[in-house]
Amino acid sequence: MALDPRELLREKRDGRAHAPESIAAFIAAATRREIPDYQVSAWLMAAFLNGLDATETDALTRAMLDSGRVFDWTALGRPSADKHSTGGIGDKISLVLAPLVAACGAIVPMVSGRGLGHTGGTLDKLESIPGFRTTLPPDQMRAQLDRVGVVMVGQGPDLAPADGLIYALRDVTSTVESESFIVSSIVSKKIAEGARAIVYDVKCGSGAFMKTIEQARSLAGRLVATSRAMGAKASAFITDMNWPIGRAVGNALEVAEAWDVLNGKPVPGTRELTLTLSAEMVRLAGVESTGAAARSCVERALDSGQALETFRKMVRAQGGELDPLEKGALHPAPVVLDVLADRDGILAACDGFALGELLVSLGGGRRRKEDAIDPRVGLVLERSLGDRVKRGERIARLHLGAPDAAAAARVAACFAIEAQPAPPLEPDLVIERIG
Amino acid sequence: MALDPRELLREKRDGRAHAPESIAAFIAAATRREIPDYQVSAWLMAAFLNGLDATETDALTRAMLDSGRVFDWTALGRPSADKHSTGGIGDKISLVLAPLVAACGAIVPMVSGRGLGHTGGTLDKLESIPGFRTTLPPDQMRAQLDRVGVVMVGQGPDLAPADGLIYALRDVTSTVESESFIVSSIVSKKIAEGARAIVYDVKCGSGAFMKTIEQARSLAGRLVATSRAMGAKASAFITDMNWPIGRAVGNALEVAEAWDVLNGKPVPGTRELTLTLSAEMVRLAGVESTGAAARSCVERALDSGQALETFRKMVRAQGGELDPLEKGALHPAPVVLDVLADRDGILAACDGFALGELLVSLGGGRRRKEDAIDPRVGLVLERSLGDRVKRGERIARLHLGAPDAAAAARVAACFAIEAQPAPPLEPDLVIERIG
Repeated sequence: MALDPRELLREKRDGRAHAPESIAAFIAAATRREIPDYQVSAWLMAAFLNGLDATETDALTRAMLDSGRVFDWTALGRPSADKHSTGGIGDKISLVLAPLVAACGAIVPMVSGRGLGHTGGTLDKLESIPGFRTTLPPDQMRAQLDRVGVVMVGQGPDLAPADGLIYALRDVTSTVESESFIVSSIVSKKIAEGARAIVYDVKCGSGAFMKTIEQARSLAGRLVATSRAMGAKASAFITDMNWPIGRAVGNALEVAEAWDVLNGKPVPGTRELTLTLSAEMVRLAGVESTGAAARSCVERALDSGQALETFRKMVRAQGGELDPLEKGALHPAPVVLDVLADRDGILAACDGFALGELLVSLGGGRRRKEDAIDPRVGLVLERSLGDRVKRGERIARLHLGAPDAAAAARVAACFAIEAQPAPPLEPDLVIERIG
Repeated sequence: MALDPRELLREKRDGRAHAPESIAAFIAAATRREIPDYQVSAWLMAAFLNGLDATETDALTRAMLDSGRVFDWTALGRPSADKHSTGGIGDKISLVLAPLVAACGAIVPMVSGRGLGHTGGTLDKLESIPGFRTTLPPDQMRAQLDRVGVVMVGQGPDLAPADGLIYALRDVTSTVESESFIVSSIVSKKIAEGARAIVYDVKCGSGAFMKTIEQARSLAGRLVATSRAMGAKASAFITDMNWPIGRAVGNALEVAEAWDVLNGKPVPGTRELTLTLSAEMVRLAGVESTGAAARSCVERALDSGQALETFRKMVRAQGGELDPLEKGALHPAPVVLDVLADRDGILAACDGFALGELLVSLGGGRRRKEDAIDPRVGLVLERSLGDRVKRGERIARLHLGAPDAAAAARVAACFAIEAQPAPPLEPDLVIERIG
């Protein structure tokens, strides 16, 4: 169709809905760079302020998907599944879950992102394994999926390139936090990578992007609906992000924790959330037909060491060295400081946003895309939410690349210790299930 | 100040007001091209949708003004005055008014624009005078203002360059019709050209940008208030634009009509509106202290031929040839068609927008900046609003550059002829006065 970007801008400016074909033409032309950035960015602001309805969000997702290559793994003869998390503190679930679901018989073509701001990214965690390659040619992806059942890679330039363009403009125009934009970005990538059963982990709480249950519920509902509109099976969990997941926060430390869980260690939080999400993937993909059977399947695959074996194969196939993991010596930090309780009381809360930002400032994350990450930097919690602690007692160990006298106290300040905290103090990991 | 455009975008996106210093820094940086167009355009959309309040509009105007050269003619020892019209069909008022007010003793440093879309531009009209130059170096402007009292030129690149940048982006992002943007664009140019008494003619009706009296009143109020905030005297008239001004519509034909009025012909509409606006300029500039004295002054200057003499001097000073005007032979059209009433009845309305668009399509205006204009194309009305006409009777003559069999009927269709039209049928030229 002949498209006048000004007409489209006027339409959204005036709060009218776009026809799906208009969105398709607009995104296609933008991807071909036939529409200048200044018109795309004005549209982003108009759409941010006046909103996109469900039909428009689906059309935007479809347009992003159609802008590039779409993988199809059906010829491999096994169902494909994936999981997406909206990002939380200490979220290393994918590292265990992806090989675990593959060990159950699905294929997991996981495309992940890098960390930016207070939450980390799966790619950065994987790259703390020496030699691990997160860029693979399609042939190699296919071969590895066939042989190992799982790949964990970054978004190549040919996968939903419109998303790359739009995301860069959202970032510089303060239009990131639009539900429709978030949904189209996430779902288009998951469908493009070839996943046909998708489980969403929508984090909710102080350390998450979604602060309220209402926001989380709305986003989860849209993710599921749009995924289904794209022809995939989908469901979502809203999970608590008022306390870090598991014990470790930081790139190499999280990989080490994932390794521990794969080796059967019952790390609280991490193991349970992994099993919940993995079982849902296995059920949704149709590997098992009931939730109970799926749960048994993933427990068995984890406890038997099959998931660990799949993880090893994946790391080797992608060029990574297992030795440091086997020896418990993945990027040891030269400086390890005790983080001490600064009063008597009960561990009542963690300001995940502040903690994440603090770790970024200590080198453990990046503020800008160009920043390098120190994989050694991080935190290992020794106490949990609801634990009674005494002033001066250690609650965590802080791993640093270089001495920093003030850092431990700044970490301690992210944890609230109260005399009489309001219940509940058990982090209720799964708050709600959608779809 | 250090400015993060993303912060500014977030502020307006969220409906908060900008500090004047933020607007100043943003516009200054945008003018230096330190802020990319895609951020400026996203801000334009946010400001369009969430609005700019009076303080922000004043700050934006000030920032546009400060982006370039600001003329100051006080050393010439006479008050400066100007008029701005928001654009109407057949609006050739400036051509008579500028020399007329100069003849009364004010200086008129008029910077005008070109036509785009259904209304014409004063520059295009002037350029139908062979040789007339609308670009003058500042020294020549000063010398001519001193000697003749009036210059009529286009906006040079050093006059409010931020306005040029912003206007171009408004055009391509469908954010033209924002009152704050309109006000800042108009007022910054008038102040930059050195006018210190400004009369606004806000057109209202089918052929105008402002369709309702409420819109017109709001715009007029803002134009006056912002002009005063910039240190100028200002007032505004809301005038009728449901019927063309005077008799002629079209570039050369309007210049010929202006010439007629300067020569004392009582062309209805054109003469009266010119006198009203001119008298207000003369009073506002302080050349005369009462409205009655100002009215006498402008009537005298027009009827005595002083205004005509000033016009002649201006045309000669700017390189134009007076001969075609003197001989009544300014771009005669090779084809002149009769526009006939298509039924019996009373001339009840003119769809000015449709008429303007039709004349553009016949070559008399431009759709895009690059388009050439045929100065010969236009219309001369022979009948007025409220006149009783018979089917087949001539109501106008259509001037064309080339034969076009269907054109006359299409022009006729722009005029409504009704058996019993609703009163009033006298075009009430001045609807309201503001300030």
